[in-house]
Amino acid sequence: MTIADRWLLPDGMDEVLPPQALRMESLRRGLMDLYYRWGYDLVMPPPVEFLDSLLTGAGTDLDLQTFKLTDQLTGRLMGASADVTPQVARMDAHSLRRQGPVRLCYCAHVLRARADEHQGGRSPVQAGLELFGHAGIEADIEIVKLALASLSFAGANDVHLAIGHIGIYRALAEEARLEDDVESLIFEALERKAVSEVDALIEQYIEDVSLAAMFKQLPRLHGSVEVLERARKVFANGSPAIIEALDQLTSLQNVLSAAHDDVTLYFDLAELRGYQYHTGLVFAAYVPGYGQALVKGGRYDDTGRAFGRPRPATGCSMDLKQLATLCQRAPSHDGIWAPTDDDNGLSQRIHALRDAGERVVQQLPGQSTDALAHFCDRQLIHRDGAWQVEPLAN
Amino acid sequence: MTIADRWLLPDGMDEVLPPQALRMESLRRGLMDLYYRWGYDLVMPPPVEFLDSLLTGAGTDLDLQTFKLTDQLTGRLMGASADVTPQVARMDAHSLRRQGPVRLCYCAHVLRARADEHQGGRSPVQAGLELFGHAGIEADIEIVKLALASLSFAGANDVHLAIGHIGIYRALAEEARLEDDVESLIFEALERKAVSEVDALIEQYIEDVSLAAMFKQLPRLHGSVEVLERARKVFANGSPAIIEALDQLTSLQNVLSAAHDDVTLYFDLAELRGYQYHTGLVFAAYVPGYGQALVKGGRYDDTGRAFGRPRPATGCSMDLKQLATLCQRAPSHDGIWAPTDDDNGLSQRIHALRDAGERVVQQLPGQSTDALAHFCDRQLIHRDGAWQVEPLAN
Repeated sequence: MTIADRWLLPDGMDEVLPPQALRMESLRRGLMDLYYRWGYDLVMPPPVEFLDSLLTGAGTDLDLQTFKLTDQLTGRLMGASADVTPQVARMDAHSLRRQGPVRLCYCAHVLRARADEHQGGRSPVQAGLELFGHAGIEADIEIVKLALASLSFAGANDVHLAIGHIGIYRALAEEARLEDDVESLIFEALERKAVSEVDALIEQYIEDVSLAAMFKQLPRLHGSVEVLERARKVFANGSPAIIEALDQLTSLQNVLSAAHDDVTLYFDLAELRGYQYHTGLVFAAYVPGYGQALVKGGRYDDTGRAFGRPRPATGCSMDLKQLATLCQRAPSHDGIWAPTDDDNGLSQRIHALRDAGERVVQQLPGQSTDALAHFCDRQLIHRDGAWQVEPLAN
Repeated sequence: MTIADRWLLPDGMDEVLPPQALRMESLRRGLMDLYYRWGYDLVMPPPVEFLDSLLTGAGTDLDLQTFKLTDQLTGRLMGASADVTPQVARMDAHSLRRQGPVRLCYCAHVLRARADEHQGGRSPVQAGLELFGHAGIEADIEIVKLALASLSFAGANDVHLAIGHIGIYRALAEEARLEDDVESLIFEALERKAVSEVDALIEQYIEDVSLAAMFKQLPRLHGSVEVLERARKVFANGSPAIIEALDQLTSLQNVLSAAHDDVTLYFDLAELRGYQYHTGLVFAAYVPGYGQALVKGGRYDDTGRAFGRPRPATGCSMDLKQLATLCQRAPSHDGIWAPTDDDNGLSQRIHALRDAGERVVQQLPGQSTDALAHFCDRQLIHRDGAWQVEPLAN
């Protein structure tokens, strides 16, 4: 192996250098502080678990994304965490076992076996929050508010929020009592937004005229707030589950239009992302010039069933590596350069400055690099019998 | 698989629950802030690298500790980081390529394939710092000072610092021109502190009387500061490398006795921990009642050679999970409990309180758990036409 080969990093397994690492750290702190102020408790899931625990109740997507490892102690198969959410659901259901609503947040490096073109790298720093134990829209609204507050903290402007509700499609499909293979066909056509295909499938397989009419409208119900009005008319005779879903969307819309009029809302009632585990409201937040969603979230009730304790759940997550690209400020020069000197007075002065929060970089004997290379803007100079902090001489 | 099985975590792969996770977060922040104030730049190494890069120049110990993964994209073998230090050395040598001293720090979850009884779990949160590009004792002293400052921040009292110097044994072994297998025998006997075995081996294999006498004294040179005086006499005719090593130990001792008279020093000149990669001063810090070293460090020059750029280096690292056990304070009740209410005034009040840094937990509709369960000590009450923060009613 040549020396050059040893420098290569696996595709998507990125290192973060100064000053970007410091930006990410400050983003991490700001977000965890934000969640703390809203009553979310920090948890730290293990980076590796037994594969069965990690993938129980999760879809094949997560299975494919999960690196497998053999536990030398037990011979059992383990997986590296590719998504923190199922881990936090296990912690809520089993480790904490609290009654009533439980609010949890986290920030952890996760690993993905495959580079998903929509997801960025294979080693995201996943930050997120989960609210367990409350089935009402109030919980979803709190999560959406925090998703928007997270973006705002990260410096995002002009946020576009895409909103869907898995409950509507789910209710229609149930009412139509479709065969599994037919439902798959319709589902895939909806996912591809292939409207004429959906029309043809529905005409072929759904006999109930009223139900077919509603189903056909589903892929047409996307756009700004007026979508909700149109949906009210389309689903005027819809099942209670559909009316409930529309009521939830309206509640969210009311809150957002009152408190977040800077956010552009986009409703898409045929949005089926994460259908395998999402059960209700789903959302994704975008900013212009950035093709991928920066925050994704939604309701995923019944999580924890595999651990013997089904609980309603809603939450959202984001990749700090992506989010940090929003704030590309140049590194500031904010340090004090101190000379090499055995003088005890200098040591004490440096100690006091650091205690006061200052960054003081002390030169090592024979060091040839200078204060500017170390991002200092001031220096310690011995003048008039004392060590003084002065601007760097030009 | 039963439900109970799904709860199990692999041995040593621990989750961290509230409030311990918050304590670890505050420890992490305090340490990274401390290193920042001393001029150390934060870096974030990838959690996975190609195995060749991770293990180049590292010993078999690290190989055995490293989880292996196959990269599906290239078919090449990768390893999960089991020790951040070699990664940071690669970043210094290749990614940064700066001239002169470079100070770097990090905090990352690492994975270990085996549970080392001396190391604690298999998923430590490794925090540490590295100083590259300076061969002088001043760099080592800075690292030791920061190791002690880290322990002090974590709440450690009564610190015992064990200090050795790999250069002394290395110089003696070189001068004796021992066969490899003989050196292995002596090395192992020294590691086991088997003094009489060492004596016998030296009598058998080292003919030079003066050198043999020095070698025999090595395992006897351990104890408090007086060890350095004894060593001066033993090695009065030692090679320049040995005199240099003793001078370094004396420099460190002078600084510590002046600035850290609360730290108990223990010198052990036959300490050979990390001989495979350490080259100079080594140290480990202990606190009473805790069998393992909480911080370990030392000089490991010539790192980066595998990456085409040999550099002097010294540093230290610690496991935040271990360190956090030092500070087991009960969680404080410091939140404000807010009722469910659509009142816009309440929303604004909550918003303002959170902006001011307060933790406000809002009750969700129908929520049965109370303020105390959520660690609140105050509540928002509507009184005299306004929302007031008041102590919790008993």
